[in-house]
Amino acid sequence: MKGIVDPERIVSIGYVVRDIEASSRRLAAMLGSEVPQPVSSGEASVTHVEYMGAAAPEAVCRMAFFRMGSVKLELIEPNEAPSVWRDFLERRGEGVIEIAFMSDDADAVVADAEKRGMRLLQKGIFRGGNGRYAYIDTLDEIGFYIEVLEMFKENR
Amino acid sequence: MKGIVDPERIVSIGYVVRDIEASSRRLAAMLGSEVPQPVSSGEASVTHVEYMGAAAPEAVCRMAFFRMGSVKLELIEPNEAPSVWRDFLERRGEGVIEIAFMSDDADAVVADAEKRGMRLLQKGIFRGGNGRYAYIDTLDEIGFYIEVLEMFKENR
Repeated sequence: MKGIVDPERIVSIGYVVRDIEASSRRLAAMLGSEVPQPVSSGEASVTHVEYMGAAAPEAVCRMAFFRMGSVKLELIEPNEAPSVWRDFLERRGEGVIEIAFMSDDADAVVADAEKRGMRLLQKGIFRGGNGRYAYIDTLDEIGFYIEVLEMFKENR
Repeated sequence: MKGIVDPERIVSIGYVVRDIEASSRRLAAMLGSEVPQPVSSGEASVTHVEYMGAAAPEAVCRMAFFRMGSVKLELIEPNEAPSVWRDFLERRGEGVIEIAFMSDDADAVVADAEKRGMRLLQKGIFRGGNGRYAYIDTLDEIGFYIEVLEMFKENR
């Protein structure tokens, strides 16, 4: 049976933390990596975040990326506003929130997931406007969210 | 600074579950994968598991592997005997327990980690006797264990 995402197109593993500077320093020491500079998920005017079906312009996180072979470990520090990131941190504490997979059409993936009874939890545009993401609510089912990514055609 | 492992040599992400058949079915549906047949970590006469510095011949888990690009997601269902897997499940519940990296010399990695103040938590030989593994106690530091793998020379 067809899945909702293609496992061969894994991009990253998202890990929610409380203090991204401290977590980045500790992880960098283990991996012998440079300590990455955190970047903001971006301005609401670009990102158009929707959480639980409503505009969530306050929902922002900071992210730091560690390359591990062909995948990235992505540390995510949410701000206080409600979001998929904040909600995970409050309910579960620090930990793996999502595994992200590239797709050619995020809307089609979301529509397929909804047909199978799964909800779209959060969506938005990447900082810089290069593509979009969508969190499918698979947490209770498999223990983490499936995040679907799509690069806009001009950026592929 | 040198890390304790090389992030480019990531092999797998380990995920502890209570019911490997049920978790495998749910994850396979998401990924469009076949439902993998769980395999035992193996007989004590081969695996020589040591947990917290003592022989742990009763410590066994069942594992199921999902290929995701160049890494594997490894579901792990521990038995009731004390082990790094059982202890994680009891203290934290289901979730990502480890990220595993290949090395040329697991003993050297463990010695280096110990010099930096980290403990070896569990070690053993793979089922089939092709190589060894060691869990370094990095859980409090970075939220998951670093697992070091080494294939024996004749199996590389």
